[in-house]
Amino acid sequence: MESLYSKDIEKMDPVYRLHLINSVTGFKSANLIGSKSNDGIPNLAVFSSVTHLGSNPPMVGFFVRPGDSPPDTYRNILETKSYTINHIPANLTSKAHQTSATYSFHHSEFEKIGLNEEYTDSVYAPYVKECTIKLGMAYRDHYPVPVNGTVLIVGEIVELKIPKNLIGTDGHIDLNEAETVTISGLDAYHRPKIIHRLEYATLKEASANKS
Amino acid sequence: MESLYSKDIEKMDPVYRLHLINSVTGFKSANLIGSKSNDGIPNLAVFSSVTHLGSNPPMVGFFVRPGDSPPDTYRNILETKSYTINHIPANLTSKAHQTSATYSFHHSEFEKIGLNEEYTDSVYAPYVKECTIKLGMAYRDHYPVPVNGTVLIVGEIVELKIPKNLIGTDGHIDLNEAETVTISGLDAYHRPKIIHRLEYATLKEASANKS
Repeated sequence: MESLYSKDIEKMDPVYRLHLINSVTGFKSANLIGSKSNDGIPNLAVFSSVTHLGSNPPMVGFFVRPGDSPPDTYRNILETKSYTINHIPANLTSKAHQTSATYSFHHSEFEKIGLNEEYTDSVYAPYVKECTIKLGMAYRDHYPVPVNGTVLIVGEIVELKIPKNLIGTDGHIDLNEAETVTISGLDAYHRPKIIHRLEYATLKEASANKS
Repeated sequence: MESLYSKDIEKMDPVYRLHLINSVTGFKSANLIGSKSNDGIPNLAVFSSVTHLGSNPPMVGFFVRPGDSPPDTYRNILETKSYTINHIPANLTSKAHQTSATYSFHHSEFEKIGLNEEYTDSVYAPYVKECTIKLGMAYRDHYPVPVNGTVLIVGEIVELKIPKNLIGTDGHIDLNEAETVTISGLDAYHRPKIIHRLEYATLKEASANKS
């Protein structure tokens, strides 16, 4: 068992540190976030920080770093108050990962990587046609995290597109059947296999208190 | 493909909605957060919202809901500025999940579920002896998310305990070898299997800009 301290992490090669610290929190959600500028240029970017915040109302958060170039996702969401969250399935990992390349603004990542936009009446931002589980989001608020220069974006699910057979009788979604992947570190894509479901001890109470 | 809208989600049975919306963001990190009150009572609770925020300095966030009872983790962290994040390995899912039961304050979950505390000179809060990858955290700040009553807690990794053989030459941690699990929904534990690692397109630039 090795112990690493602040001073060791500080002294690390920057790329080594990026890989290490990006994998140290465990497995991460794997989503493509779709957005579109007011003048109609669609954007698509892979995010591994999408996190459940609450179920009633259905709220989701994720983190952006506004200093990053190009910050299209952040700009588009503040401008239009609309975005989509699309689960990355196992067969789309290579295409999805290409969005981590820096394309110049005024280019559609959809076109560049060969994925198709899909639109509904309820949501301005484009969904990814090829994805299986898709969330249409309405921006609610954003919170700067000054200690590290990121911003937490919070939105509400206003439309959920999902094959009916993936939803169990208790509401639980079969993400294995959906072939949704998970990310570790910066660049590793994994397919999870279920071990078991366990009784949720406080579920009765949870229906009142938990979100 | 089914489409569900805000009004459909609002009308759902609360437990069905809990399961559905908790699984709709994809796979989640699976960690036990250890903390200890100023008067020495240790606490342990499973969290699926631990998220990477940045690598330099190494920052991690997670969400608490202060209204939940018992809010020991939140109280202890604000009181002592110290906590630990411990990856849940496949052989500990059942024990870890038991921490989702509501124990009264002034009881140690370590004792209740049969896991052992482990201490170091650098961190006040208890680590979980049985876990393989453990992060010692110093509280940095917290940010209320008023739109849904949660609080984002942000901390810095000040100690990292990990078997040396799990760290690749480029810094990437082999979470499969560590047997770290991932959670979907409220209660489903999965073991991920790697599909592939992909070249990180902007890594050279990233070493300067990305965190």
